[in-house]
Amino acid sequence: MPTESNARVVRHFQQDLGELKERLLAMGGLAEDRVHAAVKALVERDLPAVQAVLTGDGPINQLHIEIDSRAFTLLALQQPMAIDLRAIVAALKINTDLERVGDLAVNIAEASGRYLQHPPVKRLIDLPRMADLAESMLRDALDAFVRRDVTLAQTVLECDDLLDSLKNQIFRELLTHMLESPSKIEPSLDLILVSRHLERIGDHATNIAEDVIFMVSARDVRHMSADAPPAVQ
Amino acid sequence: MPTESNARVVRHFQQDLGELKERLLAMGGLAEDRVHAAVKALVERDLPAVQAVLTGDGPINQLHIEIDSRAFTLLALQQPMAIDLRAIVAALKINTDLERVGDLAVNIAEASGRYLQHPPVKRLIDLPRMADLAESMLRDALDAFVRRDVTLAQTVLECDDLLDSLKNQIFRELLTHMLESPSKIEPSLDLILVSRHLERIGDHATNIAEDVIFMVSARDVRHMSADAPPAVQ
Repeated sequence: MPTESNARVVRHFQQDLGELKERLLAMGGLAEDRVHAAVKALVERDLPAVQAVLTGDGPINQLHIEIDSRAFTLLALQQPMAIDLRAIVAALKINTDLERVGDLAVNIAEASGRYLQHPPVKRLIDLPRMADLAESMLRDALDAFVRRDVTLAQTVLECDDLLDSLKNQIFRELLTHMLESPSKIEPSLDLILVSRHLERIGDHATNIAEDVIFMVSARDVRHMSADAPPAVQ
Repeated sequence: MPTESNARVVRHFQQDLGELKERLLAMGGLAEDRVHAAVKALVERDLPAVQAVLTGDGPINQLHIEIDSRAFTLLALQQPMAIDLRAIVAALKINTDLERVGDLAVNIAEASGRYLQHPPVKRLIDLPRMADLAESMLRDALDAFVRRDVTLAQTVLECDDLLDSLKNQIFRELLTHMLESPSKIEPSLDLILVSRHLERIGDHATNIAEDVIFMVSARDVRHMSADAPPAVQ
């Protein structure tokens, strides 16, 4: 194949890969917005806003399918190697993570809808804090993917402990409320569920960050204690 | 390339793909065993068995990395097309799902460890039933993958409602216990968590079944209401 044509193929591939990343960022933005909207609706006791989250997963589901299809096309037609191959496989995995984040926004809205049928258990301070942290982890993980930035990905992994300790703090506080007053048991359970959903959003950000580290360095950090075989370069 | 050499390449590829599937089945078996062991340890109030689940995730984590590496190698060296490409991408996704199932077995063991510090809340009948169902969904989904059996994959999707209604039944019953006696609040919370973990194992089986349907038919059933663009053939 002549060099010029080769260069065109490479240019075309890099352009398609760029578009794939752009769509993933759009998907990440949508997922983040939905988590934010769900927690805001809970804090502001805004039932119509809860309802909007429950029924608003069309765009994210459509993007999910579109991104998978783009990634498959790139794999099938371009036969990429090394970091490009790892980038496309990472895109497929990240796409799945983001779709689950969208599902978790729905789960938060479901728990919120039930919670709002009761008088408030307490002022909600730590749950929005958890949400902010989970959202910023998600944003950083996606930025790290687009910029191939291992250092940024590493900071996402470090945030997970903070999210975990916020979740434990929320749990202990709600348990106290439940022990004091049986009428608070049911609504407190829903707040505990919301905190678990937020924790899982952080887990998805962590997955993405691990995929970024593997993509860039071909180093698998997912089970650091395991005796890992060398990855494909 | 001469035909004989071509045939050799194809044979080699099919053999590698066969080995990949075999390793995935082994991973599925491990994941299922760990879920089973975790729930059995809870029901039998066997703390050493709980501990064994907590510390026993080495083999599954190692398989997780090995399978990813095999799939990458096949993608990089064989440049598969159509159903073979979809099968390898499905294997990568299924691998992630199975690893999460392994993590959920650990989560079940964590909740069980806390639960066993209290007197029993009730006889555990429905949780093992949920576990059996989730395990068989997982098994069927993997069989469907290996046999490329869309009908079997479809039955997995249908089981999810049953799992969901078992979970709701467990929740209502435990809520009653919590309202009756504050001392049962904390251990009941852990049983509720276990039921959520089992529900998520069912979700992973569902993901696998959806991947199988896409792999075989190139038909995306993940968001049936969404207006899906056509998939790559």
